[in-house]
Amino acid sequence: MEIGKKKMAIYAIVLEIVFIVLIGVLGEYESSARPVDPTPADMSLYPYFQDVHVMIFIGFGFLMTFLKRYGFAAVSVNMLIAAFVLQWAFIVRGVIHHILHGEAKFPIHLGEMLSADFASATVLISFGAVLGKASPIQLLVMALIEVVFAQINEYIGLDKFGAVDIGESMYIHAFGAYFGLAVARVLHNDKYEEAKGEGSVYHSDIFSMIGTVFLWLFWPSFNGGAGTGDEQHRALINTYLSLCACTVVAFAFSQLVESKGRFNMVHVQNATLAGGVALGTSANMPLQPWAAMLIGTIAGIISVLGYQYLTPFLNSKLKIHDTCGVNNLHGMPGLLAGIVGAVAAGMASQATWGESLYEIFPMMVPPHNTSAFANVTLQYPAITEPGIGRDAMTQGGFQMLALVLTVVFAIVTGALTGCLLRLPCFDNVYGSRMFDDREFFIVEGQGYPCNDEEDHMSDGDPKMRMLDDA
Amino acid sequence: MEIGKKKMAIYAIVLEIVFIVLIGVLGEYESSARPVDPTPADMSLYPYFQDVHVMIFIGFGFLMTFLKRYGFAAVSVNMLIAAFVLQWAFIVRGVIHHILHGEAKFPIHLGEMLSADFASATVLISFGAVLGKASPIQLLVMALIEVVFAQINEYIGLDKFGAVDIGESMYIHAFGAYFGLAVARVLHNDKYEEAKGEGSVYHSDIFSMIGTVFLWLFWPSFNGGAGTGDEQHRALINTYLSLCACTVVAFAFSQLVESKGRFNMVHVQNATLAGGVALGTSANMPLQPWAAMLIGTIAGIISVLGYQYLTPFLNSKLKIHDTCGVNNLHGMPGLLAGIVGAVAAGMASQATWGESLYEIFPMMVPPHNTSAFANVTLQYPAITEPGIGRDAMTQGGFQMLALVLTVVFAIVTGALTGCLLRLPCFDNVYGSRMFDDREFFIVEGQGYPCNDEEDHMSDGDPKMRMLDDA
Amino acid sequence: MEIGKKKMAIYAIVLEIVFIVLIGVLGEYESSARPVDPTPADMSLYPYFQDVHVMIFIGFGFLMTFLKRYGFAAVSVNMLIAAFVLQWAFIVRGVIHHILHGEAKFPIHLGEMLSADFASATVLISFGAVLGKASPIQLLVMALIEVVFAQINEYIGLDKFGAVDIGESMYIHAFGAYFGLAVARVLHNDKYEEAKGEGSVYHSDIFSMIGTVFLWLFWPSFNGGAGTGDEQHRALINTYLSLCACTVVAFAFSQLVESKGRFNMVHVQNATLAGGVALGTSANMPLQPWAAMLIGTIAGIISVLGYQYLTPFLNSKLKIHDTCGVNNLHGMPGLLAGIVGAVAAGMASQATWGESLYEIFPMMVPPHNTSAFANVTLQYPAITEPGIGRDAMTQGGFQMLALVLTVVFAIVTGALTGCLLRLPCFDNVYGSRMFDDREFFIVEGQGYPCNDEEDHMSDGDPKMRMLDDA
Repeated sequence: MEIGKKKMAIYAIVLEIVFIVLIGVLGEYESSARPVDPTPADMSLYPYFQDVHVMIFIGFGFLMTFLKRYGFAAVSVNMLIAAFVLQWAFIVRGVIHHILHGEAKFPIHLGEMLSADFASATVLISFGAVLGKASPIQLLVMALIEVVFAQINEYIGLDKFGAVDIGESMYIHAFGAYFGLAVARVLHNDKYEEAKGEGSVYHSDIFSMIGTVFLWLFWPSFNGGAGTGDEQHRALINTYLSLCACTVVAFAFSQLVESKGRFNMVHVQNATLAGGVALGTSANMPLQPWAAMLIGTIAGIISVLGYQYLTPFLNSKLKIHDTCGVNNLHGMPGLLAGIVGAVAAGMASQATWGESLYEIFPMMVPPHNTSAFANVTLQYPAITEPGIGRDAMTQGGFQMLALVLTVVFAIVTGALTGCLLRLPCFDNVYGSRMFDDREFFIVEGQGYPCNDEEDHMSDGDPKMRMLDDA
Repeated sequence: MEIGKKKMAIYAIVLEIVFIVLIGVLGEYESSARPVDPTPADMSLYPYFQDVHVMIFIGFGFLMTFLKRYGFAAVSVNMLIAAFVLQWAFIVRGVIHHILHGEAKFPIHLGEMLSADFASATVLISFGAVLGKASPIQLLVMALIEVVFAQINEYIGLDKFGAVDIGESMYIHAFGAYFGLAVARVLHNDKYEEAKGEGSVYHSDIFSMIGTVFLWLFWPSFNGGAGTGDEQHRALINTYLSLCACTVVAFAFSQLVESKGRFNMVHVQNATLAGGVALGTSANMPLQPWAAMLIGTIAGIISVLGYQYLTPFLNSKLKIHDTCGVNNLHGMPGLLAGIVGAVAAGMASQATWGESLYEIFPMMVPPHNTSAFANVTLQYPAITEPGIGRDAMTQGGFQMLALVLTVVFAIVTGALTGCLLRLPCFDNVYGSRMFDDREFFIVEGQGYPCNDEEDHMSDGDPKMRMLDDA
Repeated sequence: MEIGKKKMAIYAIVLEIVFIVLIGVLGEYESSARPVDPTPADMSLYPYFQDVHVMIFIGFGFLMTFLKRYGFAAVSVNMLIAAFVLQWAFIVRGVIHHILHGEAKFPIHLGEMLSADFASATVLISFGAVLGKASPIQLLVMALIEVVFAQINEYIGLDKFGAVDIGESMYIHAFGAYFGLAVARVLHNDKYEEAKGEGSVYHSDIFSMIGTVFLWLFWPSFNGGAGTGDEQHRALINTYLSLCACTVVAFAFSQLVESKGRFNMVHVQNATLAGGVALGTSANMPLQPWAAMLIGTIAGIISVLGYQYLTPFLNSKLKIHDTCGVNNLHGMPGLLAGIVGAVAAGMASQATWGESLYEIFPMMVPPHNTSAFANVTLQYPAITEPGIGRDAMTQGGFQMLALVLTVVFAIVTGALTGCLLRLPCFDNVYGSRMFDDREFFIVEGQGYPCNDEEDHMSDGDPKMRMLDDA
């Protein structure tokens, strides 16, 4: 057995043993899952969890199958990374939120399963930036590191700054995108133009639509799953309307930017989803339906223009090659989400938001032992925890601060991670070996679209070909 | 920028602005989604909604990918139309059910999200009739018009005639099918035989099965989502059993009608679903399980025979070219559903139906201030709204009347819409440009099955080919 | 009409009539689905049911599309068998559990819909063993027989032995696998090497991943759907963690066993799921999260090693040709599940399991009119039914006995069924007609990967081809 080719296996097995030991030592069923003296189990989250679960494995996995020669890796390595991160996220989140707070064990329950799925989304977005250009061992190392930084960032933003983000457009989408782009920048090398496989074939673009549509359908669950009551109801409505508006506008702009007025499948597969990201921070806020639609509209426009003009620019001028265009689907829409959230927070008032003001922004609840707190608890019996009496503008400022921190932290930690991944031991993928499943998978069947000479035989003939003779 | 090729973009952007303004002016969160003084939000509908949502976007979208050269358009334009209609349906339904009744605003909530999804199904069924033969701009114009007529028809049938239709087999399936067929008839031209793309390739038939199976799986949610309690339970059971019986019989008849006893994928993809349509009007009625199975059986037979014999006849003799065979999947099974509903209503009695009689047929509740009404409310406390004391035969008659109205109204309004769509400004698609993604999508990758000469090289050799050399 | 080619149609129609008559005579809506005097309907099971429903039709159906020339049959015949079995399972289960106990009618309700779906899984697993080698009529005959034996086995194991199996890894997975392998052994003939179609093409392996991922995602619902409260919560957590660990290890071992360290899609498609099977008997038991992960790890290793070494051995030495490798995905992991369940039962105690001891093992509840029973009911008011006061070791012994019975009964009844299926009237499929959709489906489109000579033209050239010229 040659160790060199099987590094990932050794790494994965060692880490899996570490995961089992750490969860054995530090983790335990939450009380509602314990057999003795359980609190009642509330399983009402489960359908939302399953929708998000489908988004992670089917949504992200199939969305990335658009590459003609990288379908095996897209859906399979997506599954590997996610299964790896789900376990690691339990541990990292448990340490940050429980062990470091002096608890002996962290609890494992359905809510944490949802949080772990969210955490895996961060890494899968970064995967989209380096798709076809990184080896499985590089990806699993990146996953190990990124989850830690992403969870620290979320902890600072959410727990310390009190910057809320129900659909995690800042803490997941923006973080994952800019972390991934930083990694992609550092991994960049001059042999990119030798890669032959970075296109789609007809059926790979249809496979990709399986991912797109499931992401589109279940995005309301992503943005609303963690809420309850009227908050959740609004999150579902807002996300649904935002996505609808985004989709119509994305098709329109896809036609506008092409000389012959034809739709571009890249836009259909990706830009139609930007409305879900752009609403992620503010989905549960009482924005009004028209505002959700407007935000979706803006996201759709930004995303199409990004794919059309910004991605080629970043690649050619800044050497940032973004395979899936995560900047256009997760990065810029994530920034938009953060800004919308900050503006909405800055304009929030008890008069128009009522109880939701304090439910959504716990830091805005007046402090303990004040008459203001007594008034709030009297008016809204559901509010029982005191806050720090933050005003709206300050809350808006902290929302903005969390967004800026997220982007800076993602870029810095992503760049450092990229430097680590360049170490020769991690098997960087170069040149013609990029975007090619044969590098990591047994591909012995027929039907692999790989005849390179023929790729260049295009003579203006409208006939296109999947596979060709020598 | 050449306006001519980008009409759809202009149209879509203008309409999107109109949608945002109208929803801004006329729409508002329903009280359970409002932050101030909310009624409790009941989210128990959400899993049913999501099942139907999957049916609309994955189900309809992938079902139509069977065409070898029209997969991009099938799943993408399906998504565009649906996202467009979802917003428009909120407005049209809000105006009909609220604004015209003197309310200042119409409420937006989860139940309306489900209704909007239902409304989009109507248009997507019509899309199936003209698949490959209409331009995106034609389809969006058709969508704008059809939703208005379909909602008016439903309002008359449901609110005025009191003709119930829990799975909307009359108001959606039959309406959408006959509207679409009328459009298809008017758009028909003599260049159809020049179209080369109206077949499937091996993998496009498998893509189509993704749509079929998800439609099949979630049809109980379609027929039962709007119900509650025992009504809903029956709707799920009846639809499940009807689909099972329909599937077995559809396979059997597919084998029977072919000389060599081979199954036909067209039947597998479509006729297996007819049992869901055929139960749509009566799903919540206490039919007994065997009756649901019998109705599914009949639907499966009708649908296979329709695909085998009626569709070619309609095309060659009546110039009604029905790309997806919506007459066989939605039209005739929709008629069957309406007839079953009318017969069941005509035979209904309080003795066997109990409280369900009045829950299912609100018009059969006795009128206000009668002793009969007092008796009913005493016996069934859940019944609180008086009706008009309609008897069973009359209810059956109105069910039948609603069915007839639906078909007539669909054909007339569909034909008028078709005439409008023939205007040159709407870019009719002719001849060899039909059934071809290259007309509206950038298709630059390999693998597009398009070598026309080779299509004719079949020499009885069993070898078939996906892509060919020049 | 030539009867010979249409036997399946006759058989299916006759059986469908029998099903309708039997359900008409023996079946009725359960009270919560009846219109008169209903008990309240509890629909909380429905999302779990739908997850399992997706597993049966999408999961199993698409998982089997990996064969390059058998995609139509995989997903379509899967659907036919399942729709056939769902109805038959209502009847068989109703007779065993109600009619033979003296009731006049068996009840039809949502819970039975879930049980019917479970029952169909048994047959579909056996289908995996004979995929491509049996005709539709053979499969429907096998389905008719297998459901009866599988339900008898489950009745003996569950009701008589009291051997629990919440995710039915013994009664479904192990039974289905060994029944199917016995059928495959008996059907084996010497013309297997003539079959040309038993490989995959690039896109068929991606289609297969649709099935894999949906099975993976919804397996927690499969193992936990039938539970409630803390039991259900544990089942979801345990299955989720087991699958994650299994997936990481399956990828690692897939790389380890290949000389060049490349992943094998067969392992990705199948071995990643073994963790769900291996937890099936004990999912609701308080194993601790780390133990669930350890069991998943072991299952992943066993499954990869099975695909790599055992399947070729069974085929070449024992003439057991296992098309989908059900022994590695369902058989051995099912045995592991049964053993884990027996060991866990043998170690169970009231001290650590509390109320769950009696909820999970009803036979361990003390007998009626004993002080022990009085104590238990006092301590755990939810326990109301007396048991037989079985101790833990005895329960473990009965769990083991049920596992042994299942395997023996499956092999014996499978072999007998195989002998019946060899009768010439059932159209055995031989030699080059195996693994070929053209045998049972109209395949007239392009894109069928069938040029046999070209299959052998591989000259070491990395270029592979989907379709070829003559």
